[in-house]
Amino acid sequence: MASSSAKMMRAVICDSPGPVSVLNLREVPVPTPQPGQVLVKVLAFGINRAEMFTRQGHSPGIIFPRIIGIELIGTVAGYPPGDGPEPGDIPIGSRVATCMGGLGRQIPGSYAEYSCPWKKNIRAVPDTTLPLATLAAMPEMFQTAYGSLVDSLDLQRGESILVRGATSSVGLTALQLARYLGAGRVAATTRSGARAQMLRDLGATDVFVDDGNLADQVPAQFDKVLELVGATTLKDSVKCLRPKGTVCMTGIQGGKWVLDDFAPMTDLPQRRRLTGYSGDPSDFLALPWEQLIKAVEARTIQIPLREFRLDQLQEVHKVLEDGGGGVKMVVVI
Amino acid sequence: MASSSAKMMRAVICDSPGPVSVLNLREVPVPTPQPGQVLVKVLAFGINRAEMFTRQGHSPGIIFPRIIGIELIGTVAGYPPGDGPEPGDIPIGSRVATCMGGLGRQIPGSYAEYSCPWKKNIRAVPDTTLPLATLAAMPEMFQTAYGSLVDSLDLQRGESILVRGATSSVGLTALQLARYLGAGRVAATTRSGARAQMLRDLGATDVFVDDGNLADQVPAQFDKVLELVGATTLKDSVKCLRPKGTVCMTGIQGGKWVLDDFAPMTDLPQRRRLTGYSGDPSDFLALPWEQLIKAVEARTIQIPLREFRLDQLQEVHKVLEDGGGGVKMVVVI
Repeated sequence: MASSSAKMMRAVICDSPGPVSVLNLREVPVPTPQPGQVLVKVLAFGINRAEMFTRQGHSPGIIFPRIIGIELIGTVAGYPPGDGPEPGDIPIGSRVATCMGGLGRQIPGSYAEYSCPWKKNIRAVPDTTLPLATLAAMPEMFQTAYGSLVDSLDLQRGESILVRGATSSVGLTALQLARYLGAGRVAATTRSGARAQMLRDLGATDVFVDDGNLADQVPAQFDKVLELVGATTLKDSVKCLRPKGTVCMTGIQGGKWVLDDFAPMTDLPQRRRLTGYSGDPSDFLALPWEQLIKAVEARTIQIPLREFRLDQLQEVHKVLEDGGGGVKMVVVI
Repeated sequence: MASSSAKMMRAVICDSPGPVSVLNLREVPVPTPQPGQVLVKVLAFGINRAEMFTRQGHSPGIIFPRIIGIELIGTVAGYPPGDGPEPGDIPIGSRVATCMGGLGRQIPGSYAEYSCPWKKNIRAVPDTTLPLATLAAMPEMFQTAYGSLVDSLDLQRGESILVRGATSSVGLTALQLARYLGAGRVAATTRSGARAQMLRDLGATDVFVDDGNLADQVPAQFDKVLELVGATTLKDSVKCLRPKGTVCMTGIQGGKWVLDDFAPMTDLPQRRRLTGYSGDPSDFLALPWEQLIKAVEARTIQIPLREFRLDQLQEVHKVLEDGGGGVKMVVVI
């Protein structure tokens, strides 16, 4: 049985697909972990654009009402009967992190005081001086940036990379992570020249104001492009690649997932390569998590963030709808 | 001045975009090489689907009437005044090969007794016992197969590859070339089970009859896929890839260049990669030409071909329109 004595909890329920007003803070029963799950007392969680898409009804297979939220930092509060803690399991009371794996989609999510992620998808949080809010900003953001740079783009030391749409939270992380991983030239784009200095301060070697025709400014110059704007700029991003370079589409700041007319033999000339990144729980588990936490402690990688409370999720989603504000938003409970 | 004494030559003129009847054998003046070009007496040339698309008006920037034809085997017949032969140039009378580089598009092509390719795009034909027709089948076909496998797909020894649409002339060559290059499993597809044995005889380790849903038969099994059917089957081909595998679209046997709705983040899951191959004269020049000629002499790589004369180009293009017949067509003059 769950060892927590709490019977009821506060949670933000997404009542149905709709505008921000469908998100409502309610008292609901603490969930009971099913076999293979673990009960986690949520301490803090990061906010993601994916949650806005789910709320708007764009994620397939979601049954409403649903507690959304795809990542969290918390403490282990219980295991289901007969299913733990077993030898090797993380002890009750220990701090853990998780993201993806159906959280906030097929199973209740993190916008709550308790959640029941899959045991196989949690990992321990090492001892750290980082504030809870900073830790909460990390799982999904680092998984996405690291997965895109290392797994999808196979970024090598000394290679040049362009981060297109660099002022988003993932973009800022990817920019700094690319430097940290030893990339050579690390260029960044922004739609507004006003943010160029901020990007330089975080390690961008070049900053370009993106008018949609970047290939005119930097034709065939990069080994790798991380495409965070999406389908609207992807063909132009391909033209910024050197022969045999790779572009990875990871974000859709431009609001568009789909290329309406894509001709690989002409749109990917001279062996330019296209790949995508959409995340997987195994990626979070494979992350060099301890090493990244140390890099954040040392401020080698900085995480601009904005902190909210559980009763502010409507406000948080309004900010998401306005573009996210260029910082990672987190909720501390 | 051109050293040839011929003033007039036979050539197949594509009078305008249209059906096969626009191809007409005529007497026209032997062209004069311009600076940077070389006059070549054409001995034989391979036939390509690209020429059908040009004849049909699908290639942009072609000015009609035009002598089409994108590759040839011939002998050097002259250099323009003041532009050669210079030290290092291929001597007059030597056999040469060329393909692409605007031939049959921006400059008059190979469907003629003489042609004027760019000097930088020709290379010598080594001494060989191969018949002229076999040699003529090789430049574009090997450039395409080798460029796709080596440059675009970066095929490594021991890797598995699926050649989708293997019964075309490029497919048959790619299949054998993949074996020759040391690939492990080399699977091939055909729409007709009747051709399975022929594919096995040429080295296919597995043959699949392609009903458009190949991923049901071989899900996530291949390191590499060479996509010769085109946009109609590409999404299904991606699903035949292992994580981090690559598909290269090189052909459009299915008649479709363009993906109407392609979402990289979901259609390229788990870091599957998409690239294309559309050919470049530098690829032909980079080809291990002497080595490939030896492999064909040894029948390690077999080239099924069908031979025609210069007055049969309408018939040749009818065969192209009917699908090409699964052999390389060549014209010997």
